[in-house]
Amino acid sequence: LLTLILAETALETIPKKIHSHFSIRNYSKRKIKPLKRLLLERSIHHSAMQKLNNNKKRGRPDIAHMVLLQALNSPLNKEGYLKIYVHTNNDFVITVNPITRIPRNYNQFIGLMEQLFSIYRVPPEGEILLELERKTLQELLFEIKVDYVLLFSTEGKLKTIKEAICNIPPKSKPVIIIGGFPQGSFSKETLKLVDEIVCVDSKVLDALTITSRAIYEYEISIKLPEKRVLNS
Amino acid sequence: LLTLILAETALETIPKKIHSHFSIRNYSKRKIKPLKRLLLERSIHHSAMQKLNNNKKRGRPDIAHMVLLQALNSPLNKEGYLKIYVHTNNDFVITVNPITRIPRNYNQFIGLMEQLFSIYRVPPEGEILLELERKTLQELLFEIKVDYVLLFSTEGKLKTIKEAICNIPPKSKPVIIIGGFPQGSFSKETLKLVDEIVCVDSKVLDALTITSRAIYEYEISIKLPEKRVLNS
Repeated sequence: LLTLILAETALETIPKKIHSHFSIRNYSKRKIKPLKRLLLERSIHHSAMQKLNNNKKRGRPDIAHMVLLQALNSPLNKEGYLKIYVHTNNDFVITVNPITRIPRNYNQFIGLMEQLFSIYRVPPEGEILLELERKTLQELLFEIKVDYVLLFSTEGKLKTIKEAICNIPPKSKPVIIIGGFPQGSFSKETLKLVDEIVCVDSKVLDALTITSRAIYEYEISIKLPEKRVLNS
Repeated sequence: LLTLILAETALETIPKKIHSHFSIRNYSKRKIKPLKRLLLERSIHHSAMQKLNNNKKRGRPDIAHMVLLQALNSPLNKEGYLKIYVHTNNDFVITVNPITRIPRNYNQFIGLMEQLFSIYRVPPEGEILLELERKTLQELLFEIKVDYVLLFSTEGKLKTIKEAICNIPPKSKPVIIIGGFPQGSFSKETLKLVDEIVCVDSKVLDALTITSRAIYEYEISIKLPEKRVLNS
C-alpha cells in the first residue's frame, strides 16, 4: 500500500482578512453564498489576494483537482493499493475514500469542495467519500503509522523518480509527499517530518507530473502493469 | 522528436442542431455570446445533447485541457522533443506551439478555445501559439510525414506501455495517437491510418493517464530523466 499526501495544498475558503475587499463582496453577492463557504481562487481573487501573507502559495484549488483525478483513476488505486490524503495550507486534512469519483468538471469540483468546507463531509449522508478535519501534517503522519516518508522538492538530493521509488525499503508502509502549491517551498516544519527529500529534475515539475510518475513507478516496482495486461 | 495527437477529441462549438433548444438559448443569453462562439460542454448542456448523434463521445473540453497541460509541462516538451496536435471530432486540427502556456484554470481555457474557434488563431496577433484549421486526421498524418503510428485502444494487442514505446523503431519519426473522448471507440477511418494498435491495461485508462505514461516512457527510452538530473 502506497500513501500519497498532497501537502500544504493551496485549498481554503476565502480568509476573513479580505472579506471586506470590494471585489470579494461583489463575488459573494454574485454567487449568492456567504463568504466563508466560498473557495479562494487566484484566477478570480487575484487583486484581493495581494493583501494575504504567503499569497503566492495560496488559492489554487485546480492543483488538488488534477492530482485527485490523476491519482484516483490510476490502476494502482483501482487495485486498492493507494491511499490519498490532501493536507491544506491551513492545516486541514481531507481523507479520500478510494472509491470516490471526483467530478471531472472544474466548476463542479469547486462546488464539491465548498460543500466539504461547509459540512466537513461529502456526501451529507451515507458512506463518507471525502472527510475534512482540522489536523496538522505531523498529526496525520502519526495517525497513519508510517515507516518511510519520501518528499519531492527541488531542495532535495538529486535522483531520478525511478531511483527514488526503487529505494523505498521493501515491506515498509511508505508515504510520498508532494507539494500541492504553485510556487515557493515547503515549510521547515514539513521538511522535519520526512526521511528523505529528493529532487528529480533540473527544473520544478508540477504536482500533476510528479504524482503521475511516482504512482506509475510504484506500479512498476510491484509489477502491476504486467499483471493487469496478463489478466485481460 | 515524438509527435502526440489527441484524436477525435470531444471539442467543438455548440452544433446548429440544438441551437433552438431552450436551455441552449438561455445559456447564450447568460454568456452574452452568440451560440456559434460557445463550446459544447456535457456538464452544462447535458439534456440538449441527447438529441445529438454519437453524443457520448462529445462535449468534453476538459479532456483536451488536462492532456495539454500535462504534455506541455513535461520535461520532454521543455527539451523541445515533443510536438502536439489536437484533432477534433468534427475534423478540425489545432497545431500547438510547444512554447504555449495553457491556462491552468478551466474557465480561462474555455474562453481561450472559444476565441480559437472564432478567429482560428491565438493570440490574434504576433507569434501563433494555437492555430485551428479544417483538416482530417489523414491529412494531418500525410502533412507531418510520419513513419510509425502507434494508437492506444482497448481493441489493440495487449502490451505494457513500456513495451509499446520500446518497440518504436529506432531513428523513426513516431506518432502516438490517444483518444480525446470520454467513451466509445475510435472510428474505423482512424484505425485504418495506424501501424500498430496496443491495449495497455485490463480496463479503459483515461487520456490523461495514457498521455503522462507514454510521454514518460518515451523520456526514459531516450534517457532524459538521467540527463536532466545530471545537468542540475
